Amino acid sequence: MADVKEVNRLDRKEITMNKLKGLGQTIIDDVNQSKIPSLKIPSRGTSNIVYDEDKRYYILGERAGKRSLGNVKQIKKLGQMIFVSNFCKDLVQREKTATLREMYYVSEGWGLGFDNQQESNIVGEDIEVTLGTSREDLGLMPEEDGASVYGDIVFQEGDVEINALKSGKSGYTISPTIDEVDFLDHNVERVIAVETMGMFHRMVQENAYKKFNTLIVGLKGQAARATRRFLKRVNQELNLPVYICNDGDPWGFHIAMVIISGSAKLAHVNHDLATPDAKFLGVSATDIVNYDLPTDPLKDIDVLRLKELSKDPRYRDEHWQNEIKKMLKIGRKAEQQSFSKYGLEYVVDTYFPEKLDAME
Amino acid sequence: MADVKEVNRLDRKEITMNKLKGLGQTIIDDVNQSKIPSLKIPSRGTSNIVYDEDKRYYILGERAGKRSLGNVKQIKKLGQMIFVSNFCKDLVQREKTATLREMYYVSEGWGLGFDNQQESNIVGEDIEVTLGTSREDLGLMPEEDGASVYGDIVFQEGDVEINALKSGKSGYTISPTIDEVDFLDHNVERVIAVETMGMFHRMVQENAYKKFNTLIVGLKGQAARATRRFLKRVNQELNLPVYICNDGDPWGFHIAMVIISGSAKLAHVNHDLATPDAKFLGVSATDIVNYDLPTDPLKDIDVLRLKELSKDPRYRDEHWQNEIKKMLKIGRKAEQQSFSKYGLEYVVDTYFPEKLDAME
Repeated sequence: MADVKEVNRLDRKEITMNKLKGLGQTIIDDVNQSKIPSLKIPSRGTSNIVYDEDKRYYILGERAGKRSLGNVKQIKKLGQMIFVSNFCKDLVQREKTATLREMYYVSEGWGLGFDNQQESNIVGEDIEVTLGTSREDLGLMPEEDGASVYGDIVFQEGDVEINALKSGKSGYTISPTIDEVDFLDHNVERVIAVETMGMFHRMVQENAYKKFNTLIVGLKGQAARATRRFLKRVNQELNLPVYICNDGDPWGFHIAMVIISGSAKLAHVNHDLATPDAKFLGVSATDIVNYDLPTDPLKDIDVLRLKELSKDPRYRDEHWQNEIKKMLKIGRKAEQQSFSKYGLEYVVDTYFPEKLDAME
Repeated sequence: MADVKEVNRLDRKEITMNKLKGLGQTIIDDVNQSKIPSLKIPSRGTSNIVYDEDKRYYILGERAGKRSLGNVKQIKKLGQMIFVSNFCKDLVQREKTATLREMYYVSEGWGLGFDNQQESNIVGEDIEVTLGTSREDLGLMPEEDGASVYGDIVFQEGDVEINALKSGKSGYTISPTIDEVDFLDHNVERVIAVETMGMFHRMVQENAYKKFNTLIVGLKGQAARATRRFLKRVNQELNLPVYICNDGDPWGFHIAMVIISGSAKLAHVNHDLATPDAKFLGVSATDIVNYDLPTDPLKDIDVLRLKELSKDPRYRDEHWQNEIKKMLKIGRKAEQQSFSKYGLEYVVDTYFPEKLDAME
């Protein structure tokens, strides 16, 4: 298995290099043919973000704009794209990475300076979308690390083997370079991702990884890109079902949904990030009622958000529609840690087994 | 070495159990002697928080209040303290932990309910300060994990050995239960803690851990309690010098200072958390000038904060006073990643060696 993965990894690097070279070649070809150099850049506008019913996640539509050296307003932007692409080519070649922040500072030496980091981030996204490759493949990393993983799986990073049962109680941290990690071996049947590290530690402490033969993933709120990539990979490459357990409120719902169906903003990389077969385990509005959980009243902003979600194409199936309606009706929300009303062990001894039984 | 540490760890548990039992005994003794039960609780008010010049961190003074069953207003609070203490005794006995959030929900069953989590957190602190023990020793954990550690050190957690060079590129995560971790073996000469994970990954990538024979600690902003405890332990138990490199602004200064001299709010546990011998490596105002770093102008709130720091007893030494004055004078601040103006490698190839040379 490791050999196949190694090839995949080299493939990713080679594909990225070819795409970057291709971008440069487009400019060179234009110059050689005495044409005014220009690049076609897929539009990221709302109207070009489409929910794909077959793929079950957001993708980019066909619309694209042209950025040309023939347009005075576009010269600087196009120049910046070339410089950033060249910087990325250098990173990929040298097997290095840089944070977006570092890239911004490096650009100080280019004489084509960005006014602020938002500007350089956007050029990074322009390249991402133009090449149809993720910025991580380009060597550009976010600041933040991904989720924590605990359970019986062995990773290979370079020449180091890492057992996620033996990385400490806080588990193995998914790094932004997760695509350079190979899955060597595992002995689990599923993955359960939870929103908070509080719940993660509870599950480790109550031996949930043994009990359910599962990987435990501590999302730390909204899942980082690296986390989403990891969940997609374990789902696809290892055929493991993925369950997500979050707080029972619209924000918890949506943390799960972004893992499942991707975000609109990242429509151009959802093919690498979305896991349409991942399932929301709870806390649902039905759970709140059935388990008589301690709750808080919905705030105005919760109600507003639930109404937004009910119109979102990702929530159009009947189950979600019912859950949203039910939560609006009871007017209450509950945190995943609220199961401790029945004792610290209850969530692992009772809730998870009952829910997994019902879903599998 | 492991044996000694194991004993220390058991000691901590035994000491905590004895303190908890002692608290209960005080109440029982009062009852047996037909006295109205009461507890003496050290005051955490500002006037009772004292900067100790010898210890070089904040401690609590001698003032204490009494909480008595004879005072109608105090009955509920005292009852809650007893229930929480009992809950903690149960945790320590069973070698479990709970988050403060879980404890809040568990309390739903006590019939002495808290109105909100802030109330239960404060009772947790009351017990912490009354017993002079940290809440982690009581089994009460914060939600968040601590810093990431990379480098040549081997930890023992239970029967698992963890090598922080072989835990993946994001390193070993310091868990809230860091006092249950033993230091088995190491081969480093120092510890360098950096504010951002961006800088952490830069140092891992540029082999800073080899180059400086150092542990790299990624603080992720303000250091969690577990991180401060870890830094104190490596400094004390392994005699390793600790250097801190943060953004060059008042917030970066203070992240370092809280590691060095503790916070006022945690005066009652600073003896476990403060590392007075840890040193601020940079980014200083002098660095900003000497290295001609890309900067941003100080905002009003930065200026205000710098003026506050200049009056803080923790900053009274000449070096800090000069740095604060200089930053106010140049009116600029700089991030630690701004060194990438000179290339990604510069910070590891040039800045750190020069600064370490000057300091050691």
